[in-house]
Amino acid sequence: MPAQSSREKRALRILGTGAALPDEALTSAELDERLGLPAGTVEARTGVRVRYVERGSAAELGARAARKALAAAGVDLDDVDVIIGASATPDQPLPCNASLMHEQLAPGRPIPAWDVNASCMSFLVALDLAATLVDAGRHERILIVSSDLASVGLDWDDLGASGIFGDGAAAAVVGPAGETGSAVLSSGFETYSEGAHTCEIRGGGSRYAPDRVEGEYADWGRFRMDGGAVFRLAFRHLPPFVAGLLAEAGVTMDELPVVVPHQASHHGLDWVRQQFGVGDRLVDIYADHGNQVGASLPTALHTAIESGRLQRGDHALLLGTGAGISLGGMVLCY
Amino acid sequence: MPAQSSREKRALRILGTGAALPDEALTSAELDERLGLPAGTVEARTGVRVRYVERGSAAELGARAARKALAAAGVDLDDVDVIIGASATPDQPLPCNASLMHEQLAPGRPIPAWDVNASCMSFLVALDLAATLVDAGRHERILIVSSDLASVGLDWDDLGASGIFGDGAAAAVVGPAGETGSAVLSSGFETYSEGAHTCEIRGGGSRYAPDRVEGEYADWGRFRMDGGAVFRLAFRHLPPFVAGLLAEAGVTMDELPVVVPHQASHHGLDWVRQQFGVGDRLVDIYADHGNQVGASLPTALHTAIESGRLQRGDHALLLGTGAGISLGGMVLCY
Repeated sequence: MPAQSSREKRALRILGTGAALPDEALTSAELDERLGLPAGTVEARTGVRVRYVERGSAAELGARAARKALAAAGVDLDDVDVIIGASATPDQPLPCNASLMHEQLAPGRPIPAWDVNASCMSFLVALDLAATLVDAGRHERILIVSSDLASVGLDWDDLGASGIFGDGAAAAVVGPAGETGSAVLSSGFETYSEGAHTCEIRGGGSRYAPDRVEGEYADWGRFRMDGGAVFRLAFRHLPPFVAGLLAEAGVTMDELPVVVPHQASHHGLDWVRQQFGVGDRLVDIYADHGNQVGASLPTALHTAIESGRLQRGDHALLLGTGAGISLGGMVLCY
Repeated sequence: MPAQSSREKRALRILGTGAALPDEALTSAELDERLGLPAGTVEARTGVRVRYVERGSAAELGARAARKALAAAGVDLDDVDVIIGASATPDQPLPCNASLMHEQLAPGRPIPAWDVNASCMSFLVALDLAATLVDAGRHERILIVSSDLASVGLDWDDLGASGIFGDGAAAAVVGPAGETGSAVLSSGFETYSEGAHTCEIRGGGSRYAPDRVEGEYADWGRFRMDGGAVFRLAFRHLPPFVAGLLAEAGVTMDELPVVVPHQASHHGLDWVRQQFGVGDRLVDIYADHGNQVGASLPTALHTAIESGRLQRGDHALLLGTGAGISLGGMVLCY
């Protein structure tokens, strides 16, 4: 983490969370059949039993999660100061996904709406921004919504990269902590751009716009990952990164009832479990969701809260990696 | 502006700015010829004499602007805490443009890098975030880079929407104000999503991904705007919005040596000039740049600073509209 970033804790309370899954489930057993593979192949290769597929809109799915988070928080949209879209696969390049969710949630009400894109770390970057904005008194209540439809750009010839993904959305409403003690104790982000092209979708932006490239455009819209390169880079930098986050927060891994990771892959989750001695405290929703890109971490956070594994006053480590390659982490008191 | 957002001024100093234009100029005279129109048609219709076209990468163009801003600020990249990409047309959906600029600027140095997308208001949203992050002591120096290549998605059958655009990039390095008095005095954003589809690029995201739609994909990548609808919506809401920003900052329009607008269109600029009685104080670079999407406002700001029209200690109003439809504004003491 950069030397100049402040180490002070920021008061912030997660007032409510919500998650939404598409209606359509796609099991690995169905994929075995569709791809003509022996039964059990896809689950063995990917670690995913079932993922969900959305045929509609990321903004609409995000709005479903947002409504649940608002209800859980007991907060009316009129009391929300900003809607932050925090995804890697928004519906459209223009306008931003937050505007399209605004259209679903708050038509006619001029709540500001803009997006953060830090790929799989988008929610964590937005939550970190929210911590400063709320603690500094700039805003009072912020709605963060991650909604990602990875399913639209998958290449089923590359099962290892495609079989791990699933669609989904999750949201959080955050606000002042008052005297509750809820706070962000430490957070950090690091980008290692030597891995910028190890995990990417090339088409859909300006560089490889349809008029600029040859061939079937669908190929340009495919997600491509060199999983080995991503893992090597992440695994090299994560141990000192996590040590720094814990030291800054003044906690040890043993004191944390839960660690809430991005659900990158079964291998990635296993590595975190073992490397940091987390065991069953790792919130692992991967087998029944897959890697939901930016929606994974907030969905796992929501699951931890809803299931009672993360209780008020508990400390938790949120942690993940994303395209960039970026590491992100946060120790919070829930 | 939402009632809960704080009205307090935030100390922030713009330490340096920079802008970059592509090498390739495209005059309206050349467009007349290319489109088989009588000489003078395109300039009369669009108000643009010359715009620039980038055949390469938004990240590389952004990195050029960033290097200039760092040099102007006298700040080394090692002293930058965060790189924020603030554009509507990044190179790729994944990773974010800030990561791709990181690759140009800072390979091997783990400076965090992430994007904000608020279309043409992206720079202003990022600057507003930076004001809170720096004033609250969360970060010390932030590099904001807007780089947009509108040229890749233009439909020359719709001259009114296409002839107004130009490519470009601009950047700012911001940091603590110390005792200088530099500050953001007021700012605000409003999103009117009833206009969400009056200004959009539908393809390139998840909703209209290549596998999901029929027909030539280039058509899905085109920018579409109902200029009249955008203007009506913006012009209805801008007067009270601007009055609020000025009142909150405790300044009147007459005291401002410059107003730095997004360069939306010649009609839009004329309207601002007349509606708010700004006259020649409006920084108008439109005829020689066109509408550069997210890069317009920081390029105009850079021009105002470089030309000496905006001096240290002066107050300025930054103002604009973007897809969403969103209004954004800020009164700052430079």
